[in-house]
Amino acid sequence: MNRLVIGTRRYSSWSLRGWLAVRAAGLDVPDHVIALRGGGQTTEIHDVSPNGLVPFLEHDGAQIWESLAICEYCAEFAPSLWPEERKARAHARSIASEMHSGFRALRQALPMNLGREGRALNEMSAEVLKDIARVDTLWSETLERFGGEGPYLFGRGLGNADIMFAPVVSRFASYAVALSPAAAAYRDAVLAHPLMQEWTNRAAEEPVSWHLEHYESVA
Amino acid sequence: MNRLVIGTRRYSSWSLRGWLAVRAAGLDVPDHVIALRGGGQTTEIHDVSPNGLVPFLEHDGAQIWESLAICEYCAEFAPSLWPEERKARAHARSIASEMHSGFRALRQALPMNLGREGRALNEMSAEVLKDIARVDTLWSETLERFGGEGPYLFGRGLGNADIMFAPVVSRFASYAVALSPAAAAYRDAVLAHPLMQEWTNRAAEEPVSWHLEHYESVA
Repeated sequence: MNRLVIGTRRYSSWSLRGWLAVRAAGLDVPDHVIALRGGGQTTEIHDVSPNGLVPFLEHDGAQIWESLAICEYCAEFAPSLWPEERKARAHARSIASEMHSGFRALRQALPMNLGREGRALNEMSAEVLKDIARVDTLWSETLERFGGEGPYLFGRGLGNADIMFAPVVSRFASYAVALSPAAAAYRDAVLAHPLMQEWTNRAAEEPVSWHLEHYESVA
Repeated sequence: MNRLVIGTRRYSSWSLRGWLAVRAAGLDVPDHVIALRGGGQTTEIHDVSPNGLVPFLEHDGAQIWESLAICEYCAEFAPSLWPEERKARAHARSIASEMHSGFRALRQALPMNLGREGRALNEMSAEVLKDIARVDTLWSETLERFGGEGPYLFGRGLGNADIMFAPVVSRFASYAVALSPAAAAYRDAVLAHPLMQEWTNRAAEEPVSWHLEHYESVA
C-alpha cells in the first residue's frame, strides 16, 4: 500500500515538509490525513507510524518516517531536490539538518497555524528572537552564496532545503515577523509556490471541528 | 584548509558521530579539538562554526555542520555507509533522523561521559525510560529485519545508522542501562569497534583540567 500519512494541514508543520517532498518528487502516493488532537499525537497515529509521529510514508514496500529522511528518499527519485554541485549540496544538507533538530524555541512559541492572518505575538522571548535572527541569517547568506538569480535558496527550483524551512516561512507570515529584505523576498517566493498554495487551500477546506484551542489561542 | 572541529572527546556525543563518519569514510582530515565549557559551547566554537556547535567539517572547499549532514556528506565518498538496498536504506535514514531530532530526555538525563564506568543513575524519569525502551525496540527490530548475521544494524559494516546511535551505546554502558539480549549484544559489538576504541583511548588522554563538574556530578 502506498500512502503518505499526514496530520491536520492547518497545523502539522512536519507533515507539510513530507508532503512537499513527495509532491515535488512526483511520487504517486495518496494522502491519508489524520486529525491531530492535543500535543500533535493521536492513538490512530501510533497505530500506523513507527515513531508515533507524522509524516509517515509507505512507498513501494519501503517505510520512511521523519521529514528529513523522507526528503532524502524523495531525492533518490528526484535528484534535483538537492543542489548538483558538491559544496552547495553540503551546505543544503547542513541547513536542512539544522532545521530538523533545532529552532525549538521558535517552533514552540509560533506553532504553525494557516488560519492565522499576519497577526504579531504580544511578546517573544530572547530565545525566539535569537532563532528568528539565525533563520534570517541562514536564508540571506545562502541566497547570497548559492541562490544565483533565485528565487529559492539554491536557485530556480524548490528543493529539500526550502522544503525543510517551508513551515517557518508560513509562521513568519502568520505571526507578521519582520525580516531583512532578502529574507522577506524569499518568504514571499515560497508562499507563492503552487504546492504551498495547494496545501493552504486544502487546509482551508478542513472541518472547523478539527481546529484546536491550543493552536488558536496563541497570543 | 581541511579539518574536523570537535569538542572534548569525553563528553561531546555529537562530535563522536561526525568523527566516526569521517574516519569510517577514510577522509583525510585532521581533528581540531576545542575544550567544551558549560552548556557544550564556547566562544571559540562560535568563532569557527556556522551554527556555533560541533562537529564542523571543512573538506576540499566544502563546509558541513550537523552530524547527520556530515554522515550524508561522508556517504558520498563511502556509499556503503548507507545500506545498498532501497528499503533498508530508507529504514536506516528514518532511524538516523529519529536519533538526530529525538530522544531529548535520554540525552539530557544521561550525558555522554566516557569516564563513567557502568554506574546506574539513582532514578530515571518516565520520559527517559520511554526513550530507552524506544531505542531498544528500534535496535532489536532493525537487527531482526535488516541485520542479517550482524553484528551491526545493517550487517557486517559500521554504517551511518550505527554512527548516529554510537553515543547512546556509550551512555547505555556508562549508566549500566539494562537492555534486551539483542540490544545488549549490539551495544557490545559497537563498543568493541576499533574506531570506538580509538576515540575512547584518546578521550582518556585528555587533560583532567577539561573535566566538567556538570557532567561528572550526574547521580
